[in-house]
Amino acid sequence: MDFMKLAQKYQTPLYIYDFDHICEQFNLLKEAFRARKSLICYALKANSNLSVVKHLAALGAGCDCVSAGEIKRALIAGVSKYKIIFSGVGKDDSEIEFALKEDILMLNVESEAELKRVEAIARNLNKTARISIRVNPNVDAKTHPYISTGLKKNKFGVDIDTAKKLYIYCKNSPLLEPIGIHCHIGSQILDIAPYRDAAAVTAELLRSLKSLEIDIKFFDVGGGLGIRYKDEVTIKPYDFAQAVLANLAGTDVTVVCEPGRFLVGNSGYLLTKVLYEKYNGAKRFVITDAAMNDLIRPSLYESYHEIEAVNKSGGGTLADVVGPVCESGDFLGREVLLPQLSHGDLLVVKSAGAYGFSMSSNYNSRFRAAEVAIEDGKDRLIRKRESFEDLIKLEQEYL
Amino acid sequence: MDFMKLAQKYQTPLYIYDFDHICEQFNLLKEAFRARKSLICYALKANSNLSVVKHLAALGAGCDCVSAGEIKRALIAGVSKYKIIFSGVGKDDSEIEFALKEDILMLNVESEAELKRVEAIARNLNKTARISIRVNPNVDAKTHPYISTGLKKNKFGVDIDTAKKLYIYCKNSPLLEPIGIHCHIGSQILDIAPYRDAAAVTAELLRSLKSLEIDIKFFDVGGGLGIRYKDEVTIKPYDFAQAVLANLAGTDVTVVCEPGRFLVGNSGYLLTKVLYEKYNGAKRFVITDAAMNDLIRPSLYESYHEIEAVNKSGGGTLADVVGPVCESGDFLGREVLLPQLSHGDLLVVKSAGAYGFSMSSNYNSRFRAAEVAIEDGKDRLIRKRESFEDLIKLEQEYL
Repeated sequence: MDFMKLAQKYQTPLYIYDFDHICEQFNLLKEAFRARKSLICYALKANSNLSVVKHLAALGAGCDCVSAGEIKRALIAGVSKYKIIFSGVGKDDSEIEFALKEDILMLNVESEAELKRVEAIARNLNKTARISIRVNPNVDAKTHPYISTGLKKNKFGVDIDTAKKLYIYCKNSPLLEPIGIHCHIGSQILDIAPYRDAAAVTAELLRSLKSLEIDIKFFDVGGGLGIRYKDEVTIKPYDFAQAVLANLAGTDVTVVCEPGRFLVGNSGYLLTKVLYEKYNGAKRFVITDAAMNDLIRPSLYESYHEIEAVNKSGGGTLADVVGPVCESGDFLGREVLLPQLSHGDLLVVKSAGAYGFSMSSNYNSRFRAAEVAIEDGKDRLIRKRESFEDLIKLEQEYL
Repeated sequence: MDFMKLAQKYQTPLYIYDFDHICEQFNLLKEAFRARKSLICYALKANSNLSVVKHLAALGAGCDCVSAGEIKRALIAGVSKYKIIFSGVGKDDSEIEFALKEDILMLNVESEAELKRVEAIARNLNKTARISIRVNPNVDAKTHPYISTGLKKNKFGVDIDTAKKLYIYCKNSPLLEPIGIHCHIGSQILDIAPYRDAAAVTAELLRSLKSLEIDIKFFDVGGGLGIRYKDEVTIKPYDFAQAVLANLAGTDVTVVCEPGRFLVGNSGYLLTKVLYEKYNGAKRFVITDAAMNDLIRPSLYESYHEIEAVNKSGGGTLADVVGPVCESGDFLGREVLLPQLSHGDLLVVKSAGAYGFSMSSNYNSRFRAAEVAIEDGKDRLIRKRESFEDLIKLEQEYL
């Protein structure tokens, strides 16, 4: 990838997404499930740029959405409404109403209280709500506590017994049509065992629902497949599929999975310019024009991202790569081996395609970065860099 | 404050700022320094809403800015250019150029490399740059590591010896006019001792510069005054002022301080609606329509914010107050004692005026909250709630 040229053309900080790599990742997963009817619902939260979503929609992906905003993005990007799932513990009334009116595939319900709201709103709209219940299998995904979601102490889903109760409630309600089972145990998962355990628990529920004449059509195993940031050994898509499918013998469900990071994480780069080199005592700092407002993962989750100098090689020394933001929590990498750098040199932060731009903010009144797609060797802008006018647009009239 | 009425009028989640309280806080600090010429430069990063800045400007405040975006906000809000300071470790060329052209009070320089850039840009513009040097006194502010900034291992400022070298460099450059000394050791500081130590170190530098015939006019002690989130014992403004002034006998400097959180922190409230109550096993969750994208402090710094039910009292049980965002890191409070709550009840998150909205994001394609000012018992909108159109505005044309 010609980072020099891209920096010249679009300036920095810049998010760059390799659309061909996204395509490869999608096909790997689709292929792994080829023995079954399957639906890959892209988890939009990872990177919701409209062009990214459109690209995945063209490959056949559906979408896993967690807000009305995400559902709207999916629809505008061309995702078929029958491939859209609405998840999340806190759907508000207007969001539920919107999802029902748009007639999306299903609402993935996370609590009894929510199920009652959905029913009430369906009644008002004179509609039937297609439902899945998110089951919390109490399985430890062994990932960062902030992104582990399948434990009883987490806010997500309901336990198996409650799930069963809710399915029976749905069966008896003319307004609720239970068509799916859902389970999502966390994010950046590297161990196959928790998937196997969760699928076993969920498949058992599937069978017991069948004996209650509740006919589930979609078996949604969630997402969370880990990627390689540093030297992680990741789960092979084939093994993931087998862990799921091994539990489904004799059933006729469509398998749904919800990859986010797996599809876009390694496809993305954050390109940034060196502003200054600086030593405080023996400690070396490389100060870049990208900051925690652009990529908060290192600060929030202590995440590691590989950082490399563009067109510079040879030895180097350890440096903290930090941004201009006014706090010590603003770092992109710590103790990174880097050659001597000068004002204007470029660094590339790798594996920044997921939870990068989508979590970015205007902290310190900084403008959010531009986003660029690379496809078939050609680059194109997919989101314009923010301007000062964008920042104050909703405030200025009240001054 | 009539939170019910405000929620009805402006919906939730909603940031509410008590402008009268901001005024009281400003006057407390101004009064503490009354024995001296002083300039209170509001640290915009805490809350950069244009109307908040305008309110403080009307009280006589200057601004401490860390980006061109913040300088522009200050200017638009009516802050005099001679009361604006530009700090930050990563000023880029265009920002330095902008600051010099606008003729602000001074650039607070944080490294030798930056000083050289400022000189080069001043030369191009045929201007003299007014400068302060940020001194890193290697003093432990005893606060969260992410917001401690006065240690050698932090990226901020330069050590005393380097500072002296840079002042001498400035003295010999016709393009650089050294008029200030700056020191800022961190944020949310509750102990007076680090302030005293830092002021002593900096005052000593001031005197040794005087003996070199470098005449410093502004003695900038930074900000960082802690506030009460829970049961913290905070530093009294008078004691803070005395800790600084005790070191300045026989000098004729203007004292500058840069409060952010102190002015706006306790003045702000985040008002949110209860969506659902939910039990996972024995664990109680209250799910609200505000989330980590609205207020990231609990997640990022493990910060405590008092949370109260509006117009509900009596006993209660412990609950985690969590938002709709798709990760376990999305919480506003943990183990909060709250009465039984129903869909639509209101909660108020206190002390949310600083680093609340300014750090907010669109994560999960959620719209950023509206902001409201309360002054003399009257409420008014100061920032409109975001819409879906705002979210996709910079992407849509590339679809």
